[in-house]
Amino acid sequence: MTSPSRVRIAVDAMGGDHGPGEVVAGALEAARSGEVEVLLVGEEEPLKADLTKRAGGRQVPVAVVPSQGVIREGESPVQALRQNPRASVAVAGGLVKAGKASAFVTMGSTGAAVAVATFTMGTIEGVERASLGGPIIGLAPRTVIVDLGSNVDTRPQQMLQFAAMGAAFARVLLNVLQPRIALLSVGAEEGKGNRQAKEAYALFKSSGLEFIGNVEGHDLLLDPPKAEVVVCDGFVGNVLLKVFEGVGAATAAFLERRLGSVDGKALAQEVYDLYNVTERYGGGPLLGINGVAIVGHGRARAPAIAEAIRTAQRCVQMRLVDRMREELGRVKTSTSA
Amino acid sequence: MTSPSRVRIAVDAMGGDHGPGEVVAGALEAARSGEVEVLLVGEEEPLKADLTKRAGGRQVPVAVVPSQGVIREGESPVQALRQNPRASVAVAGGLVKAGKASAFVTMGSTGAAVAVATFTMGTIEGVERASLGGPIIGLAPRTVIVDLGSNVDTRPQQMLQFAAMGAAFARVLLNVLQPRIALLSVGAEEGKGNRQAKEAYALFKSSGLEFIGNVEGHDLLLDPPKAEVVVCDGFVGNVLLKVFEGVGAATAAFLERRLGSVDGKALAQEVYDLYNVTERYGGGPLLGINGVAIVGHGRARAPAIAEAIRTAQRCVQMRLVDRMREELGRVKTSTSA
Repeated sequence: MTSPSRVRIAVDAMGGDHGPGEVVAGALEAARSGEVEVLLVGEEEPLKADLTKRAGGRQVPVAVVPSQGVIREGESPVQALRQNPRASVAVAGGLVKAGKASAFVTMGSTGAAVAVATFTMGTIEGVERASLGGPIIGLAPRTVIVDLGSNVDTRPQQMLQFAAMGAAFARVLLNVLQPRIALLSVGAEEGKGNRQAKEAYALFKSSGLEFIGNVEGHDLLLDPPKAEVVVCDGFVGNVLLKVFEGVGAATAAFLERRLGSVDGKALAQEVYDLYNVTERYGGGPLLGINGVAIVGHGRARAPAIAEAIRTAQRCVQMRLVDRMREELGRVKTSTSA
Repeated sequence: MTSPSRVRIAVDAMGGDHGPGEVVAGALEAARSGEVEVLLVGEEEPLKADLTKRAGGRQVPVAVVPSQGVIREGESPVQALRQNPRASVAVAGGLVKAGKASAFVTMGSTGAAVAVATFTMGTIEGVERASLGGPIIGLAPRTVIVDLGSNVDTRPQQMLQFAAMGAAFARVLLNVLQPRIALLSVGAEEGKGNRQAKEAYALFKSSGLEFIGNVEGHDLLLDPPKAEVVVCDGFVGNVLLKVFEGVGAATAAFLERRLGSVDGKALAQEVYDLYNVTERYGGGPLLGINGVAIVGHGRARAPAIAEAIRTAQRCVQMRLVDRMREELGRVKTSTSA
């Protein structure tokens, strides 16, 4: 099944809330393009049986790699991985480390994904820990927000790294040639913000980045955006990520109550999806990792899983990691100069 | 026009984006209940003419008090007030200080309102600065969020004060007998959060407050809520306040595009209002001030201005300031005990 032009991607079949069936279906959908091969990592026998059934006699570039058990959301990732080094996400990461796959994708525990990616691939030089970032609002699909919760109490220097990695993300995944960078704060002017935002402002100004200044909460909803990359502390980013999920659910419920019809239900679903982008449209790469690891939403269904696999493929083909390394080198040079 | 049972409220007629006409109309609407008298502060002649015209010969408990000029949003409040101590908001505050009104209401610059309230009424003992807080999401009208931007880089002890004042708000304005308090963080468990949230958690646990632990972003949209009072740093609160405004505007625009009908427009307006509560439903009291000062949204129209005046009336009648003082005393006692 090997083909030199195909990108081989390890997919954690056991992560995700809807079980391996959705992952198998997503893998088959992604593989249909002919551009990826998928290594499905999980319980061998049931996966093989499911795959055979769903493939329906077709030759498909999807194979199964056995693993044992799964790390659940909520478990302490490091401890769980120590107790179970053959868990699906760990085996998926191991395939990348061994050069048998170019990326891994998981819809399971984010903490476990970060731990596995960090352990198997390491971080890019100068980066302490992986970051999560990406567009999280369907109404503003060209706004990358970093960090979304991996890093709290961040130093301004780390926020500069978020900016650099966010710029690489925008170039590779959103086709933005010259991403503009902004800081999220409580006023547009330079003097506005908390200590962290003010210090970061000074650093960003002298960083050589395409820095446009501060944006405020309402600017996150704009399309076209004021800035393609919005940098914030992971505490704020994680609160926002979950706020938007809540907005989607609550507004959808309101619309359904208010319209109470088949049309209402469809419209409610659309609005729900606008604020639950990851669940609907797959997942994003861990930023700062020296390799491609895609973390998706536990509630993702087959189409979103296929999309996450395509995202992995694109990150590999477009050399996201090299782009991040370049961008990180640029801010390093310009701030130390 | 004086009546002992009526609450007399000074209203800044010059603040607000839509001009004095909306304020006059709002004052007349509020005065119709017979429970309030309004002192409209602004340019005497045009205000009197407008009032006479709108009253249409009726006797109304609304009088005009002259002032000169107005402090605009964006001006440095302290500097502007020094240059113009006869500005409308300053005169309104002065009426409270002189005992001629029991509260003031403004739809003008929040910074100027805070400066005037602090200068004319002072803060409650032990409180360093005024706070802004209240329900900001129409879908979760029983969730008071404090602080919304007046205080950033707050110490855990200040956050405890936000909790106490938020509890008084919930009792007086939302009729909640036993408000539950939560901290906004990035996970429900005690160990989750940034340094500030973790330290505050420890303090809140031993405060004697009805503390239920952490809530996350999505919990802010719940009704009934997990907690009636959610405490956060003003940086986070202000980002959220503006995010919700942006959500309202962006979702309304989406619905109008998507439905493109008269129904669509009405529904879009409803959704807009759900996320722009202050603009639609008036304003809230400055917390921690030793008196009643209501700050509303610049875009408020007459019905919202009337509502803000009724809120002032309620805060006076229900003794909001005494309640805040009691709650603040309780946490002081219990944490120093």
